[in-house]
Amino acid sequence: MIPREPAHDEGPAHTEGTVLVVGTGLLGASAGLRLRACGVDVALDDPSPTARALARDVGAGRLAGPDEEPSLVLVAAPPDVTAQVVADQLRAHPGAVVTDVASVKGAVLDGVAAALAREGAAGAAARYVGGHPMAGRERSGATSARSDLFTGRPWVLVPPPVVDDADGRGQEGGVRAEEALQRVLALVSDCRGVPVMMGAAAHDEAVALVSHVPQVAASLVAARLLDARDEAVALSGQGLRDVTRIAASDPALWVQILGANALPVARALHALRADLDDLLGALDALAADGAAVGARARVARAIDEGGAGVARVPGKHGTAPVPFEVVSVLVPDEAGSLARLFADVGDIGVNVEDFRLEHAPGRLVGLAEVSVLPAGRPRLEAELPRRGWRVAG
Amino acid sequence: MIPREPAHDEGPAHTEGTVLVVGTGLLGASAGLRLRACGVDVALDDPSPTARALARDVGAGRLAGPDEEPSLVLVAAPPDVTAQVVADQLRAHPGAVVTDVASVKGAVLDGVAAALAREGAAGAAARYVGGHPMAGRERSGATSARSDLFTGRPWVLVPPPVVDDADGRGQEGGVRAEEALQRVLALVSDCRGVPVMMGAAAHDEAVALVSHVPQVAASLVAARLLDARDEAVALSGQGLRDVTRIAASDPALWVQILGANALPVARALHALRADLDDLLGALDALAADGAAVGARARVARAIDEGGAGVARVPGKHGTAPVPFEVVSVLVPDEAGSLARLFADVGDIGVNVEDFRLEHAPGRLVGLAEVSVLPAGRPRLEAELPRRGWRVAG
Repeated sequence: MIPREPAHDEGPAHTEGTVLVVGTGLLGASAGLRLRACGVDVALDDPSPTARALARDVGAGRLAGPDEEPSLVLVAAPPDVTAQVVADQLRAHPGAVVTDVASVKGAVLDGVAAALAREGAAGAAARYVGGHPMAGRERSGATSARSDLFTGRPWVLVPPPVVDDADGRGQEGGVRAEEALQRVLALVSDCRGVPVMMGAAAHDEAVALVSHVPQVAASLVAARLLDARDEAVALSGQGLRDVTRIAASDPALWVQILGANALPVARALHALRADLDDLLGALDALAADGAAVGARARVARAIDEGGAGVARVPGKHGTAPVPFEVVSVLVPDEAGSLARLFADVGDIGVNVEDFRLEHAPGRLVGLAEVSVLPAGRPRLEAELPRRGWRVAG
Repeated sequence: MIPREPAHDEGPAHTEGTVLVVGTGLLGASAGLRLRACGVDVALDDPSPTARALARDVGAGRLAGPDEEPSLVLVAAPPDVTAQVVADQLRAHPGAVVTDVASVKGAVLDGVAAALAREGAAGAAARYVGGHPMAGRERSGATSARSDLFTGRPWVLVPPPVVDDADGRGQEGGVRAEEALQRVLALVSDCRGVPVMMGAAAHDEAVALVSHVPQVAASLVAARLLDARDEAVALSGQGLRDVTRIAASDPALWVQILGANALPVARALHALRADLDDLLGALDALAADGAAVGARARVARAIDEGGAGVARVPGKHGTAPVPFEVVSVLVPDEAGSLARLFADVGDIGVNVEDFRLEHAPGRLVGLAEVSVLPAGRPRLEAELPRRGWRVAG
């Protein structure tokens, strides 16, 4: 039986004082839920009275009063207003550190600096630490919030860009830049995130490659299905489902994200298009003449480079990919059959490293692909059939 | 406990006579294994003595002798030699029906017709039924064969293109075209595939959209990671993993497939590139001027169209997508915890429709996303916490 709170989550919170959450959607309310579970005082604010009341009602904190004195402000506003809200909060709370959760960082940092400069308060930037927790879900709003949303996820932090004076003290507010970073690290720790320090430009380039370009590719491939015949779509398999799954994401949010990270995304997509053009040239040549010299080598290069690239994607727990082995088991589509399978695997004493349920279109059986460490495979292949399971060799 | 042979698989085979399998790699040996399990006589042939001995040793059939008289020949050769092998088999076995498993059909049909015409045996085409089982796996060869490889998968059949004479009898061999189709349908049934009748052009266009273009997109996105910094790749999440998974496929096979289906794939990729160019134009405009008029609407259209396209992808069992609901449960990374979870879900009496284990990079917990019919969700959310599980709201 699992304890309700694993041991490593016990003990007092690292965060001291009040955390003011500005913007009580999915991310803000999820942080509030988790911080409340640690016993942190959380004050909630949102331009929408309905949204902030909803966040209070789900247990994310109390409504903010007119005279809050937070130690930390977490700005969880939409990307396109984040910079102005951060600047407003820096001015409103001179003793507070401010951080945000926007999924682009360069545009937000520039926006904060510009807003502070207009107000003659450039030094306040020393109290701002840009942040981006790599977490989310398809649903939005406080009602979709969950206290474990950030558990184990990378949480990128962009340290204050200003140069401190000799004793490390910022130009105003009495908060050292290093103290600002410490307060945000405490928040990330209390939210069970994994802090990753990066510059804004490196962050934006990274998310373009690992998040924004895949989103665009999924959308473009899925869009090709719009005009496909029903009989064509009926041949879809797991490959297509995997490639296009994230195409179902929220368009309004993605317009903001792609718009705010336009340059790095465009740069990566131009490079992708150059590869696509090279491949298309080879395919056009083969369509005209099946014996076109050199064309197959160009096709092979595109597939080879993809294989080399995917080998860099980290596997479980953020480590390098481990060569798990897959044991495939036929599973009837009825209540309890997966339970029996996992019970038997557990009895045999093998840990399931990954799991995929592969549906069999048109038939009431599924194929369970159970990934295990190499040593576990022969044991499962020997033991599962004795327990009545059909294991594919 | 699962019966070793579900009831619907019992009873005598539909296939009569000997099946000659030519090409004893993954697909040929898998068909042999399954046909042997039904009691069908399977003769194995392959240009490689090692490959055919290996297939015999794994139980896919007996070695073919010099004077076989098969009722059916299953050609499971590489795509680029399939047409010639089919023509050779039609000539060698005038009483047999011949089918194949190549993943492109137009090029193979044209090749068969050309080879038969050269030999003055055009009428033999009445005994050829093109086939393509939508099945495969990353590993190849007879040692990776499994008798359930085709279970529940669509198996496309392209009926003979020749016009029969008045009584439906082909021009040679004494086998009616309709009888040819019946024999191949019996094979598909014995292999537990789901037959889908399509013309060759419709098939090739369909697999371009649902298989070949997704493969190319996965490869192109993965190739972008080749030059990425380690810290960027470390931010990878499930979205990137899903989009790029199939980029790890066999380059040699994909060069043959893309080369043999160059025209339909190029046509779909040109359309994709037009969408990409439109999106790139919008992103370039936004990179130059964040307030560029109309650019955000063009970005929104690309994401919207992707969402509409992915909604057409069939879900479980080849049916239209069912709106399953997801219950997320925190699972410690230790042997037996998934077993306990599935046992508890089974006890509660809710069927698991789909399942995803979402790893938490850097932390030894996972998030199990359990998809259930809508009625099951409130029951799990009420009952699982009572059994000690942490369920995310």
